[in-house]
Amino acid sequence: MRNLLDGIQSTLLMGAGPSSVAPNTYLALSRNTLGHLDPYFIKIMDEVKAGLRTLMGTENLLTVPMSGTGSIGMEAAFVNMVEQGDKVLVLQNGVFGQRMVDVASRLGADVKELAFKWGTPVDVQQVADELKSNDYKIVAVVYAETSTGVRNPVEEIGKLLRGKDTFYLVDTVTALGGMPVEVDKWGIDICYAGSQKCLSCPPGASPITFSPKAVEFINSRKAPVPNWYLDMSLLTKYWDGNTRVYHHTPPINMFYGIYQAIQNILEEGTQNVYARHQSAHEQLVKGIEDMGWEMLVDKDYRLPMLNAVVVPDGVDEAKLREILLKEYNTEISAGLGALNGKIVRIGLMGYNAQPHNVEFILDALKKIANS
Amino acid sequence: MRNLLDGIQSTLLMGAGPSSVAPNTYLALSRNTLGHLDPYFIKIMDEVKAGLRTLMGTENLLTVPMSGTGSIGMEAAFVNMVEQGDKVLVLQNGVFGQRMVDVASRLGADVKELAFKWGTPVDVQQVADELKSNDYKIVAVVYAETSTGVRNPVEEIGKLLRGKDTFYLVDTVTALGGMPVEVDKWGIDICYAGSQKCLSCPPGASPITFSPKAVEFINSRKAPVPNWYLDMSLLTKYWDGNTRVYHHTPPINMFYGIYQAIQNILEEGTQNVYARHQSAHEQLVKGIEDMGWEMLVDKDYRLPMLNAVVVPDGVDEAKLREILLKEYNTEISAGLGALNGKIVRIGLMGYNAQPHNVEFILDALKKIANS
Repeated sequence: MRNLLDGIQSTLLMGAGPSSVAPNTYLALSRNTLGHLDPYFIKIMDEVKAGLRTLMGTENLLTVPMSGTGSIGMEAAFVNMVEQGDKVLVLQNGVFGQRMVDVASRLGADVKELAFKWGTPVDVQQVADELKSNDYKIVAVVYAETSTGVRNPVEEIGKLLRGKDTFYLVDTVTALGGMPVEVDKWGIDICYAGSQKCLSCPPGASPITFSPKAVEFINSRKAPVPNWYLDMSLLTKYWDGNTRVYHHTPPINMFYGIYQAIQNILEEGTQNVYARHQSAHEQLVKGIEDMGWEMLVDKDYRLPMLNAVVVPDGVDEAKLREILLKEYNTEISAGLGALNGKIVRIGLMGYNAQPHNVEFILDALKKIANS
Repeated sequence: MRNLLDGIQSTLLMGAGPSSVAPNTYLALSRNTLGHLDPYFIKIMDEVKAGLRTLMGTENLLTVPMSGTGSIGMEAAFVNMVEQGDKVLVLQNGVFGQRMVDVASRLGADVKELAFKWGTPVDVQQVADELKSNDYKIVAVVYAETSTGVRNPVEEIGKLLRGKDTFYLVDTVTALGGMPVEVDKWGIDICYAGSQKCLSCPPGASPITFSPKAVEFINSRKAPVPNWYLDMSLLTKYWDGNTRVYHHTPPINMFYGIYQAIQNILEEGTQNVYARHQSAHEQLVKGIEDMGWEMLVDKDYRLPMLNAVVVPDGVDEAKLREILLKEYNTEISAGLGALNGKIVRIGLMGYNAQPHNVEFILDALKKIANS
């Protein structure tokens, strides 16, 4: 019988994610499956938790990978924290901020959306003004807005919330593993990420952390979390302590993958990894500007791992991406929403943030644009 | 740096799941990750859908793997179908029936639980009587109750619902791939399964199917599905037709795994696979009875893939399982809930349903019990 898997190409994934995966992480995925209550698997879980705490800059006990892809982190964050009618402020400057509005609204939150022009960062002064006139239970923002390539001022927004009862909820799906994330220092209460961006693991596990204050809230909710699968008050009994109560069977082999991906980062050294991302980014920007093309985002707010490049007039971006995929076996991403057709998004994530990949993509772009 | 993954043993997984995985399915997991909008990945998705339709006995267009483990299937089934106050009848004779009650109640359903003694099947006459006096929007039952080893009379219950508006929701997590599942013939509207049981793929993907009648309901809900990640009205735009609208990034490599696992079953032939499960089951039961031990479930309602064995007085089941794991590298499962300490659960799922595995486990049980 013909097997489609035999025809899978080794595509260079330089889009908005998933990113390419290191050989030892692929190997990890194919290790023998263990039972979810096997003491040896629990040892692996414990090291995954410890590694995530290091990458996320937190001592939160409740720091685990969720059993789904990046978006399940967003769902888990809101479904555990929102009760009917809760006031939630979402700082929105891209698709993933919009998704937060959607997710929280479906859960019955009273959502106020503070919107900023896509391609620009959240304006801290506007947030400060909003917080003077209104109290919110949750303030939510995306650190690395994957749809625009903007880094939002997460640390500065956190300062506005010091001493308040407000829960600070931050999406670091694209950031984690590619730039510093400091959950405790920045006063973040709930923070989630994805495996398939700068961790360079295939999609399928979503790291999440909850502060003691957030855990206290979850354990004292008026109504149970309206999502059994993602209820952290149940999950924590599986992940913590000596009880290890069965909740659901987690994706064992995906967790092997994230174990290896975290170990790869810790072995290289987090600061070295972040510097490698920054350096690849600067190399790419220089090449793009040398071609006479422009970056969408102002220099001060550019993400290293997600580069939004404005497609010049006369260049068909869909055609560009198609040729890259067909002739160069390389994937880059289209713009989303209002930016569709106007930008392409070039990822330099994890394993892919290497000088030779930057050279390769710049070379390909030049050849295609000049052909 | 020490790598825990290097110490993973090749454990024979003969518990309630996960089950052992075929070598070519492990290999599938480690294939190069493709982008979730890559046309080649979409070809793979299309074949996964077609294969699941065959295994589930359905022509439902909306037949896909969900991006999570088995329990996310249950969550997806209820969260898409339940609106506040909807009347739901759950036929409960085990842990997974109980979980249905919990999941549906959290979503605001008005749940009636019809409970049956654990280890016995749902009584069809009692269901018929209940349906005479009450109308329900949803009737839900577990086909293969993993906690007790009971096969419930899913086909017969379906007959009671013919011609009614009621949606018939069936859990086939443990059944699918190990015994016939006939969604269309049995009049099932929503049916989900897991990858880590008789499909012999690691946990991380949950096949689900919705009938046209269920899809029509989802598209005409009064309020949006209170779960963005699992909203089938959004997901279907990614999985169907030519639009392929990005929703969330699915677990690409897990879907390679399920592709291979399905292909393994189709290559062997579904009827051959079911017969192999039945034959391994009969071999096990004979051996257990030859030892003077007993099965929990009456012959007519035993599952082939999940064998609940009553632990004789004087045998410490926790010790038994511990020795099996430590000295025989073999996992079997404890009883859950009220059956904890009273039974062990021996899985004969997918790749593991082989005569030599049955011989091995019987031999080990005898040695341990006589030592």
